[in-house]
Amino acid sequence: MAVYTDITDDELAKLLADFDLGAPLSFKGIAEGVENSNFLLETEGGRFILTVYEKRVRAEDLPFFLGLMRWLSEHGFASGLPMADRGGEMLKTVRGKPCAIVSFLPGLSVRRPTVAHCREAGKGLAALHNAADGFPMRRENDLGQGAWAPMFERLKDDAERLKPGLAEVIARDVADLADRWPQGLPEGVIHADYFPDNVFFKEGVFAGAIDFYFACNDIRAYDIAVALNAWCFEADGSFNITAARALVAGYEAVRPLSEAERAALPVLAHGAALRFFLTRLHDWHATPAGALVKPKDPLEYERKLAVHRTSPDLVLFGAAAAE
Amino acid sequence: MAVYTDITDDELAKLLADFDLGAPLSFKGIAEGVENSNFLLETEGGRFILTVYEKRVRAEDLPFFLGLMRWLSEHGFASGLPMADRGGEMLKTVRGKPCAIVSFLPGLSVRRPTVAHCREAGKGLAALHNAADGFPMRRENDLGQGAWAPMFERLKDDAERLKPGLAEVIARDVADLADRWPQGLPEGVIHADYFPDNVFFKEGVFAGAIDFYFACNDIRAYDIAVALNAWCFEADGSFNITAARALVAGYEAVRPLSEAERAALPVLAHGAALRFFLTRLHDWHATPAGALVKPKDPLEYERKLAVHRTSPDLVLFGAAAAE
Repeated sequence: MAVYTDITDDELAKLLADFDLGAPLSFKGIAEGVENSNFLLETEGGRFILTVYEKRVRAEDLPFFLGLMRWLSEHGFASGLPMADRGGEMLKTVRGKPCAIVSFLPGLSVRRPTVAHCREAGKGLAALHNAADGFPMRRENDLGQGAWAPMFERLKDDAERLKPGLAEVIARDVADLADRWPQGLPEGVIHADYFPDNVFFKEGVFAGAIDFYFACNDIRAYDIAVALNAWCFEADGSFNITAARALVAGYEAVRPLSEAERAALPVLAHGAALRFFLTRLHDWHATPAGALVKPKDPLEYERKLAVHRTSPDLVLFGAAAAE
Repeated sequence: MAVYTDITDDELAKLLADFDLGAPLSFKGIAEGVENSNFLLETEGGRFILTVYEKRVRAEDLPFFLGLMRWLSEHGFASGLPMADRGGEMLKTVRGKPCAIVSFLPGLSVRRPTVAHCREAGKGLAALHNAADGFPMRRENDLGQGAWAPMFERLKDDAERLKPGLAEVIARDVADLADRWPQGLPEGVIHADYFPDNVFFKEGVFAGAIDFYFACNDIRAYDIAVALNAWCFEADGSFNITAARALVAGYEAVRPLSEAERAALPVLAHGAALRFFLTRLHDWHATPAGALVKPKDPLEYERKLAVHRTSPDLVLFGAAAAE
């Protein structure tokens, strides 16, 4: 539902005048992504997505995101290739906002991933990590483990409002994860938001990933942990070990994990659940009633947190079985 | 911003199983149309729009709309061809709602039409009327002149709330138009909502029209009158005679008007302004604050009504000059 910025045909023509993409043939706002405005653009030169960056994305991070997408495309990973204008510039401006034109990535996202989708998603994530190897730019994870304590400090009252007694439980999670957070695991560029709606399939086979606007440098296995939370919970809140096993096995088929990485998955998944709980909690109370975008329910991640808090062996079992 | 109904990949696969369109390759909700949910669908068989009909469109009218689109396509007018499933059925069901898959119509709509666009739009409207000749189904115009008095009866208080004194002015319009409404002009199938966002161009040349969900049988010149209001007013509220002249001349280049049709354009345009004023007034007060779709401002059409009320010669001049 995300078209916040209205682009007229005149503004589009002016933008395209800087590129060698030919005349526009069609142009439609699409309901993709939550943070930015996206348009499907067809020109004589092909099909593209025009993304207009709204206020949540920091302009100074855009060169990292666009550079990464270009790097991944050039290293065999299907992620949409940002187009450079005649001056070599990928980051452009329309209606006073930063924007980019990225090649259209075909594929379908799935709503309820099967075990087979989880295996493919795992393979795709490992392929992403491999392709990102050597990317020369860096971006710190501003939503990583070090950020959770200060984030929670500002959200304590919201947590308590959501569910009485929750603030104390989350405070213990934050402290516990700070104590137990793994050190020395292999780092690299991670997607950091590898959810089913950001992953495309073609007839059941992994076809690429989109939405790199949380990508950053962090522990690589943390990306798997984010994905385990996003792909392997059933609608009833239970953790699907078979799906988790398939996701990790898919990953390892492309990029094997070390013993230390595998052993860290339960605490990483616990932390990943906290990260999404905290941002959803923030959005939940920050979004005015009747806003265009419905915020995602933080309680979904509160329940996932509870699973990781009480049954860390579930994730471990999923991971161990993948050996 | 119109994606009211969420369609999962499973629901899409089930729908496509009835068609010979191949496997789905991509599927995105698009911000097109206000009344229905629209998705851009690419399959191995081509590109399509999946429209899910929401409550404002009456299910019993859908065979007329889909039949008309098919008829127009088969008679050389670019309007999107509704696809029939293996059983020959165009009207399908998804998530309990009626839906149809229509071929994708390329083209760009324009925000601020130039005089050249108005000429092309006029040509396109005449081509639509010609192509519709002989279409065997009928649908009465439930928003036509006969409907305005009962509509206004229910909206009197809303008009007064919008602008004190307005109810009396509009009541006079309704009565005056009932007296002066032309009789005996040529009738046929009309689009009835021929606004710039429903008309596509390719490099400035008319490329087709979409959104036939107000199409009906009525006076053909009334369709021109709707278009004059929609295309030929400047942002400052003034009527652009040059644009009107171009629109009528474009129409007449394809389908000449009789003297009686041309002479009736001022009263038809006055009536067309009343029709859109009344439905916008209804939507304005019926839409809850913070709804997903922002209603269109009825005051825009209140100002157009005032122009037609006080200066009917403006439209006449635009029309006369086209001879």
